[in-house]
Amino acid sequence: MKYQLLYWPGIPGRGEFVRLALEEAGAVYRDVAREPGPDGGTGALLRLLAARHASRPPFAPPILIAGRQVIAQTANILLYLGARHRLAPADEAGRLWVHQLQLTVADLVAEVHDTHHPLGIGLYYEQQKAAARRRTAEFRRERLPKFLGYFEALLRRHPRDAPYVLGRRFCYADLSLFQIVTGLEYAFPRAFKAQARRYARLRSLAARIAGRPRIATYLASPRRIPFNEDGIFRHYPALQR
Amino acid sequence: MKYQLLYWPGIPGRGEFVRLALEEAGAVYRDVAREPGPDGGTGALLRLLAARHASRPPFAPPILIAGRQVIAQTANILLYLGARHRLAPADEAGRLWVHQLQLTVADLVAEVHDTHHPLGIGLYYEQQKAAARRRTAEFRRERLPKFLGYFEALLRRHPRDAPYVLGRRFCYADLSLFQIVTGLEYAFPRAFKAQARRYARLRSLAARIAGRPRIATYLASPRRIPFNEDGIFRHYPALQR
Repeated sequence: MKYQLLYWPGIPGRGEFVRLALEEAGAVYRDVAREPGPDGGTGALLRLLAARHASRPPFAPPILIAGRQVIAQTANILLYLGARHRLAPADEAGRLWVHQLQLTVADLVAEVHDTHHPLGIGLYYEQQKAAARRRTAEFRRERLPKFLGYFEALLRRHPRDAPYVLGRRFCYADLSLFQIVTGLEYAFPRAFKAQARRYARLRSLAARIAGRPRIATYLASPRRIPFNEDGIFRHYPALQR
Repeated sequence: MKYQLLYWPGIPGRGEFVRLALEEAGAVYRDVAREPGPDGGTGALLRLLAARHASRPPFAPPILIAGRQVIAQTANILLYLGARHRLAPADEAGRLWVHQLQLTVADLVAEVHDTHHPLGIGLYYEQQKAAARRRTAEFRRERLPKFLGYFEALLRRHPRDAPYVLGRRFCYADLSLFQIVTGLEYAFPRAFKAQARRYARLRSLAARIAGRPRIATYLASPRRIPFNEDGIFRHYPALQR
């Protein structure tokens, strides 16, 4: 099956969690809104979002088109891909557990976004800088350690040669944790460095994911969008301390 | 199967979405943290959250214990219950679609929470009132119409005698939309009333859900926790305009 991914071009954002899974699966896909021409670009995405007559219209990107299915919500797309590409356990309890981890990743992603947009997405960061400073201070002090401490504890229950969140078995939540770790290192290098020792297993997981053959190829390709200040993980000097 | 639900006692919160599904299913369940005695109360919930040695430790409530399975994340619990209690379509595409709607409900719930806690959950509302006013203004003006308009449009695609989000077939997302509508009416009565005409189908869905025999019995029982100012949907006079 050839997939179509639709997501805002120019930022890694939530689309990146889907991209990592597609790349690891070796799936053939079009990254539609990043293609030039009349069928690509943001226009393609906006047309799909405007098609309210569609049988299952998505609320927001990322959106995956798989044959006749149109699937939205990052974690939902990964639930679908996980079952099809052996990126999740086959049994129901295992599948729900990995999905549960992904939903916790999604909660963290939403909070990261709120660090630079605490007053809402309708204002620019520059218009809410003071509030962003306050929200980010709490995020660095309370929320970051809570989320990362949780995932680190999950990893530490396994021996060192079982580096993944499920132990020896790799799953799509590992890819998402890679994106979280690299994103947080980009956005908050100071805070991340200061707490680095606490997250030794998470960092080593991220390094291992970066070294997986298909992911390494992907990261070195132009298909990987660098972190930037339009995405979720943004580096703002004013939010570093 | 007898279920155990664990959620913060005293607030409807995210636990309420699970409670509504359990009640509609006619499931037998204990609402553990609301029970008195040494095995109940917040203590029971905190003990479960502290049990990091558990095989699949949850990050946060609500948590559903179903036999040997411990399942967390509201939408994930509903995915599980939906399949078992005929609260969702049996086919995979239909199941993913209802789950996708539930994840969009979850996004809305997170934004509702942010209206009174834009600077973070570590501060009281009273400590972030000015920021809450700004965030709420945008929420009422931009986000509320965007989310509710999306769900209303989904309902309007069906004829009037097909009142549910899937049409004639009822699913757990309808229960969640009921909770959203009643919660928003509680939190923002003015804004909701001003926009009420736009959401005729949503309001009629909510009324229909309230009239379902098991839900009506539940709503009249002490098991239903009233909305209050410790939960997600809070009514603050300062946030009404």
